[in-house]
Amino acid sequence: MRWVRYFAPGETSPNYGSLDDAGERIREIKGDLFGAQQPSGRTFALNDVKLLAPIVPPTFYAAGVNYPTHFRTAAEKAGTPVTYPKHIDIGYRAVNALIGNNEAIVVPKDSSGKVQFEGEIVVIIGKRAKHLTEANALDCVFGYTIGNDVSERTWQKSDRTFWRAKNADTFKPMGPWIDTDVNLDALTTVIRVNGVEQSRFATNAMIFGVANTLATITRYLTLVPGDIVWMGTDDPTRDMVPGDTVEVEITGLGVLRNPIVGES
Amino acid sequence: MRWVRYFAPGETSPNYGSLDDAGERIREIKGDLFGAQQPSGRTFALNDVKLLAPIVPPTFYAAGVNYPTHFRTAAEKAGTPVTYPKHIDIGYRAVNALIGNNEAIVVPKDSSGKVQFEGEIVVIIGKRAKHLTEANALDCVFGYTIGNDVSERTWQKSDRTFWRAKNADTFKPMGPWIDTDVNLDALTTVIRVNGVEQSRFATNAMIFGVANTLATITRYLTLVPGDIVWMGTDDPTRDMVPGDTVEVEITGLGVLRNPIVGES
Repeated sequence: MRWVRYFAPGETSPNYGSLDDAGERIREIKGDLFGAQQPSGRTFALNDVKLLAPIVPPTFYAAGVNYPTHFRTAAEKAGTPVTYPKHIDIGYRAVNALIGNNEAIVVPKDSSGKVQFEGEIVVIIGKRAKHLTEANALDCVFGYTIGNDVSERTWQKSDRTFWRAKNADTFKPMGPWIDTDVNLDALTTVIRVNGVEQSRFATNAMIFGVANTLATITRYLTLVPGDIVWMGTDDPTRDMVPGDTVEVEITGLGVLRNPIVGES
Repeated sequence: MRWVRYFAPGETSPNYGSLDDAGERIREIKGDLFGAQQPSGRTFALNDVKLLAPIVPPTFYAAGVNYPTHFRTAAEKAGTPVTYPKHIDIGYRAVNALIGNNEAIVVPKDSSGKVQFEGEIVVIIGKRAKHLTEANALDCVFGYTIGNDVSERTWQKSDRTFWRAKNADTFKPMGPWIDTDVNLDALTTVIRVNGVEQSRFATNAMIFGVANTLATITRYLTLVPGDIVWMGTDDPTRDMVPGDTVEVEITGLGVLRNPIVGES
């Protein structure tokens, strides 16, 4: 099942609906995405609604460097054996930065211009969970979507935290929908700028997989329905400039497409 | 006006209410704390309800080292002039960690025991805001409350981020209420463990004040009603152990009191 969050034509309150098998029509629901729900009776063509980021999470988790290329490249440069981190590196992002499919990524006026993409798979939590094991961790997963962890590299280096480097308004495109039927091993992440492929990697080739990450988080923190965990990206990336369009495709899951504009 | 969020006796859905001048009775409201609201007609004795963290924010901001003692001590040790940071250092915390007044701070089983208090004033945002100036920044403030940025120092040193050091469940006591009538310059923060004073500082002696911080944040990020900004603490701090009770008082604002227990 694929779930979309949207503004119906002429409306400004978000609703949820499920997509039909053809991926063309939305059947709207009333109620709780993670609990009791019923059809509202309304349907819309997918093309007629404004898609929104498919969820606004209570807490927005993001894994740090979680794919091997970064560490392999560093080891090659240094002429040393590859060493990987021993534990997943969890961080946070901010909901102000979330935008949906087709919405514009706005480069702030005083940015150096080093604004780069990071295509990621996103885990949507469906059940309250603490002290998960790797064996049962995936039971609390509601579904998956796609995220672009847009990053301003100058600020990422100059600031002690990532607050503006990764959380400036519009820097967290997410969508286009939540897919509840996903085989992680079958997925490939492909990133394109203006239609030209920039990066391609097996989505599940993470250093710390989804089950391991959720088990680690819930050793200390309670996850709740609607929480999201962005799982990191693999190299390479590159600068994007106003006028560009960036696409993060996860094969079989969807394509998240966003234009880049400059702040006016 | 002081606003409390609570469970009424026998209930498990949170409500908001205002405290009377004596601080003894709650007049419950229905509606939006930041918008249209009306009395529900119910009143309760403050002592009869279970107080909750007074807000669950869309985004939970926290300022890093923002008081002078830390920098003065470092400069004295090094025999160099005191230098302060040039910009506020913004980070994030997670809502899973929030608890209310009187709820227990739980020390995780595998903690080293270096669990310390950080008493802070907390800003509650009441209006959507971007591109604030220092002159108009305080117009978006709804009120203030008290926070204890409980920190596990071993994890704070060992991990790349503060995810478990500062966001383990129960590590973010906040409350007891939101006060909308606060004169920042009149406030003193006093921290006690088991009734013995540990730390005392002028609450508004921040390196970066509230107006400056909100102006900096909103240069890049949009604040929305309900967002919270924890403003940092001053030295010293110390370890707390199960059986202790920690109090953060901000004079004229209130006392946030929490017992420490070990994870069972």
